[in-house]
Amino acid sequence: MKEKEFINAIKTVLNSSYIGDDCAYIESLGVVISQDNLVEDVHFKLDWTTPYQLGWKSAMVNISDICASGANPEFLTVGLSLPENITVEFIKDFYRGMKDASAGVEIVGGDITGSDKVFISVTAIGKTEGRKISSRKNAKIGQKIVVSGHHGSSGAGLRLLTDGKTEPKKFIDAHLMPYAQVGFSKKIAESMKNDYAMMDTSDGLMDALSQIAAASGVNLEIDFAKIPFDEDLKMFDDYETLIFFGGEDYQLVATVDEDVSKDLTVIGRVKEGAGVTVLYENNIKKHFSKSDAEEKIFKHFEA
Amino acid sequence: MKEKEFINAIKTVLNSSYIGDDCAYIESLGVVISQDNLVEDVHFKLDWTTPYQLGWKSAMVNISDICASGANPEFLTVGLSLPENITVEFIKDFYRGMKDASAGVEIVGGDITGSDKVFISVTAIGKTEGRKISSRKNAKIGQKIVVSGHHGSSGAGLRLLTDGKTEPKKFIDAHLMPYAQVGFSKKIAESMKNDYAMMDTSDGLMDALSQIAAASGVNLEIDFAKIPFDEDLKMFDDYETLIFFGGEDYQLVATVDEDVSKDLTVIGRVKEGAGVTVLYENNIKKHFSKSDAEEKIFKHFEA
Repeated sequence: MKEKEFINAIKTVLNSSYIGDDCAYIESLGVVISQDNLVEDVHFKLDWTTPYQLGWKSAMVNISDICASGANPEFLTVGLSLPENITVEFIKDFYRGMKDASAGVEIVGGDITGSDKVFISVTAIGKTEGRKISSRKNAKIGQKIVVSGHHGSSGAGLRLLTDGKTEPKKFIDAHLMPYAQVGFSKKIAESMKNDYAMMDTSDGLMDALSQIAAASGVNLEIDFAKIPFDEDLKMFDDYETLIFFGGEDYQLVATVDEDVSKDLTVIGRVKEGAGVTVLYENNIKKHFSKSDAEEKIFKHFEA
Repeated sequence: MKEKEFINAIKTVLNSSYIGDDCAYIESLGVVISQDNLVEDVHFKLDWTTPYQLGWKSAMVNISDICASGANPEFLTVGLSLPENITVEFIKDFYRGMKDASAGVEIVGGDITGSDKVFISVTAIGKTEGRKISSRKNAKIGQKIVVSGHHGSSGAGLRLLTDGKTEPKKFIDAHLMPYAQVGFSKKIAESMKNDYAMMDTSDGLMDALSQIAAASGVNLEIDFAKIPFDEDLKMFDDYETLIFFGGEDYQLVATVDEDVSKDLTVIGRVKEGAGVTVLYENNIKKHFSKSDAEEKIFKHFEA
């Protein structure tokens, strides 16, 4: 996928201010909108996931995009294209998963067509409700970097599935049935009075950090020891890679003012400069430019 | 595709009032929303369409859904999944087509991923702007049945393409580059004070008529001689089949009060009863039940 090239081409043709964040913020309607495609054998394998889990995840990844904007997720529409062998039971289980994942979010419409493989496109709409909406351009020097949840669990789950393993189940669950961080999003969006950046970690924690750093023209400095992760992740020699590049944890990372950071997990600070700097014990530092981060992400998806 | 069965299964699981019309009407936001998937080799062939035409049609079919609701089309998002061999030029031409089709409608976001075939999912949002929103349930006895444009041209174009022909080009153009009926929609939605039904003819004129008849519990009586079509359609022996079952003309059909019908093309009237009755010269009548109509549509898509 020449995704970056394609997005640049689209920006050139459309000449639009909307393209940049994962959600489009439509101020005149008081809504944000986001659309994500999930494609069989690219984003999921029917051998690894139940229809229920697939429905759950399809809803959650889009609800997560709305959460990253700071808006309140309200509505979903679902475009499904399905091969001939898909049964009514599959559809029912898929929608049960979507419905259970969408507590408080209403599924209001969509489309069903034929296709060779399962293709899912979900659109999510959130209401801004007077909250300040985030943008990856909005990190300000002096802000604290905060995160929700555990990092690396989903990547660990994907690796276990790829290796044909079934344990530890908690990592596989983290991969197949993620939770969008509705509460964390709400807390930040309702308490921030100034501009702030927030992204989900769908493409990995390092991707989110480096996108924010690049779009905001700042350096993000992270204390590795402060990043929350499941201790059992250490069963993988390269657990640090999973934490930074695993992806699909659907946790949130935000840059917020000090007063808002008080009850949250602070992992670093916004400084002058560029890229992402990770601090380890004994004064060891590693620096990641945006292209370093993107290269690792690319390698991850090729694996 | 067991589309009907699937939709019934979804209705059972969701127990939602939203599923039924092509657009979901979200009253609290003052918007309607619609999402359609277009799949390579199901809905289009890359041999028959240019990327520009494909982008054009992808936008128009969704704008048409918004027009059918009576709302004003305002925003689009686009989820694209693309095989490796797709070039940046393809993307540029596709988005140029979308942009040209979307005059006054802003493309605000979307997603790009990999896939084996080209998958396109477009979501359209329209503002209600105080207009009355249509529903296929809303046809009332005594209303007139009105239509926009010519019927059967797109079906003729599809048949020419299937037969490897390139003339008459106007029919092929009608198939590859339809126009959503923004003006017709606006005129009706702004002048109707009472409830009304309106649908586009994406699945054919007979499908739209029979869906409205079934959902509203009425009979729609049509004068065949009053249906507008291109005279050259008579080059096909079965031009009547193309008019009723060809599909993808993206014209609008509505049931409106007599005063609103004055400057419009009236093709029939809403009566007590069920199904669709077509009147021909010499007092010949044909009756179509919903299942008659659906069977013909099904046969059309199998061809």
